[in-house]
Amino acid sequence: MNTSEENKFTPVADLGEFGLIDHLTKAFPMEREENVLGPGDDAAVVRYPAGTDLVVTTDMLVEGIHFDPMYAPLKHLGYKAIAVNLSDLAAMYARPTSVTVAVAMSNRYTLEAMEALYTGMRLACKRYGVDLIGGDTTTSPQGMTLSITAIGRVPEGKAVLRTGAKPNDLIVVTGDLGGAYMGLQLLEREKEVYKVNPNMQPDLAGHELVLERQLKPEPRLDILDLFDRYELIPTSMIDISDGLSSELLHIAKASGCGLRIYEEKLPVSDGVLNLCDEFGLHPTVPVVNGGEDYELLFTIAQADYDKIKGDPNFSIIGHITEDPSKQLLIAKDGAEVQLEARGWQAFKSAE
Amino acid sequence: MNTSEENKFTPVADLGEFGLIDHLTKAFPMEREENVLGPGDDAAVVRYPAGTDLVVTTDMLVEGIHFDPMYAPLKHLGYKAIAVNLSDLAAMYARPTSVTVAVAMSNRYTLEAMEALYTGMRLACKRYGVDLIGGDTTTSPQGMTLSITAIGRVPEGKAVLRTGAKPNDLIVVTGDLGGAYMGLQLLEREKEVYKVNPNMQPDLAGHELVLERQLKPEPRLDILDLFDRYELIPTSMIDISDGLSSELLHIAKASGCGLRIYEEKLPVSDGVLNLCDEFGLHPTVPVVNGGEDYELLFTIAQADYDKIKGDPNFSIIGHITEDPSKQLLIAKDGAEVQLEARGWQAFKSAE
Repeated sequence: MNTSEENKFTPVADLGEFGLIDHLTKAFPMEREENVLGPGDDAAVVRYPAGTDLVVTTDMLVEGIHFDPMYAPLKHLGYKAIAVNLSDLAAMYARPTSVTVAVAMSNRYTLEAMEALYTGMRLACKRYGVDLIGGDTTTSPQGMTLSITAIGRVPEGKAVLRTGAKPNDLIVVTGDLGGAYMGLQLLEREKEVYKVNPNMQPDLAGHELVLERQLKPEPRLDILDLFDRYELIPTSMIDISDGLSSELLHIAKASGCGLRIYEEKLPVSDGVLNLCDEFGLHPTVPVVNGGEDYELLFTIAQADYDKIKGDPNFSIIGHITEDPSKQLLIAKDGAEVQLEARGWQAFKSAE
Repeated sequence: MNTSEENKFTPVADLGEFGLIDHLTKAFPMEREENVLGPGDDAAVVRYPAGTDLVVTTDMLVEGIHFDPMYAPLKHLGYKAIAVNLSDLAAMYARPTSVTVAVAMSNRYTLEAMEALYTGMRLACKRYGVDLIGGDTTTSPQGMTLSITAIGRVPEGKAVLRTGAKPNDLIVVTGDLGGAYMGLQLLEREKEVYKVNPNMQPDLAGHELVLERQLKPEPRLDILDLFDRYELIPTSMIDISDGLSSELLHIAKASGCGLRIYEEKLPVSDGVLNLCDEFGLHPTVPVVNGGEDYELLFTIAQADYDKIKGDPNFSIIGHITEDPSKQLLIAKDGAEVQLEARGWQAFKSAE
């Protein structure tokens, strides 16, 4: 924030709670017919057609734990907060229709900051055809906390759970992995440089793709359309928020099975490879343990292999096995490594 | 928290995020058939019968703004956090079925504190027949923030909005008002006493009812059953979270009308009258401007008067008028006072 222009900014207290909510939500018209009643009453009303299951997910993002306003612009934060919730719905094979947004924000934030946050949320809502139907806005003694609930629909009984993987199923991942993690490494490096010399321009050129993976992830709702086109129903599915390894272990635990994935099959972009080279990191580290890529990880019956082979959106990285005690990464040299969940460390990092 | 026993407490970091969520949610079995899938996957799945509208509301509670852990025990806080969201659904004439809970909590809180919070939430869920279907648990750099989303069902098109009040409609309120506000005054007084002399026992005897109104409010879901029994459909409805005056202004604004309420008709309990006497406060102040009573405020057609007259749950306090510029309190001496929204001051109080 540019302190020399601080007088231009409007304290949120000037509007009061209702003025603020009116101000922020008026830019969110109800565009989907499912959303019968949006913000402005005690609650919102959503109407789904008969034969529809409602799918609902909630995520909380806390300043200093999940984001650092120093390198996460509020517009990007707003976008990402919506995107990661829609990703959870995609992982259930559900189409999102509606979100509620609760924001607690200290008086350090101005109305303009709040608007930037909501602009990012609006962009994500618009891109994915979702309406903001309600929420809450309040002050907090310190920092910012965001809580988003996303609601979507799936034909009755068709939600894809983590529990359905069967031995011999193929393990498939969309896109490529490790980008969001390397984007974060890059931002943290430049933050350290900036701390030492605030006049130094950050050196981010050529790394736009990995930065975008970190700052502006996209939920893979497009993959649901591919499933429909290929008439493919995964046996289990999860989104990669905490890292491939962690998500594989979730599927194995929920489905009561083991698995084998192959290092040589893991999808990794040139951008990630180049940055790993620069940082002296083995690329398998961010690919297996880096989180926040928001790709989909799913399993399919072997009989469905022909439906997706040759589609560049999908990489078959391994298969499900019987033994629930073994979740193995087969390294390029043939070594077998038991997978561990190293992904999510928010509780630890805050100690 | 008893610091001499601190070694008995378990830091939440010891469990990690997934261990913690597992630990806290295992005490919440899915008991309603609508909740097809509870916590443990990317999202929850809810199935309502055909012809049902989904009603959804979100509220955020922030330590230091909405609650003070010094006099709000965490069990009560958990109960209240659920209750106030169910109250929003009741105000739509919706029956709650499901809640999601997101909690951010600093490492100052122990596992035992978290358990107390969830025990309170479980009590409220059990009392009102609601399942906890999902959520998020994370750490925060400071304090606690709770965000609850409650989901309920109403027959298609039957949600009662704030917009339907018509001139000559009667204005009705359930229960009595001002108790939660006076409970807060009492707690704040005793907190000041405690600060001066921590050995002094708080003097709360005889005030259990107003304290309960503040610490453990109940959503008036029982009123929906009365509506059904009387075959009564309010023309508009809202719950009293920010104070009678503020809520009346919401209905007037949303319905584009004026209103008159009569001081002599306002329902007030003996407990509130006694405390007002003790504090030297005019009882109309907490009754009109005190918030958090979570009673229902609604309007009915004059033709429906006979359906509720004589039922002690209801007080008819005034009527709707044509002129949208006049929302009047008629004092006992006949003076006309324009109502103002003084209720909700969280943004101001944090300055």
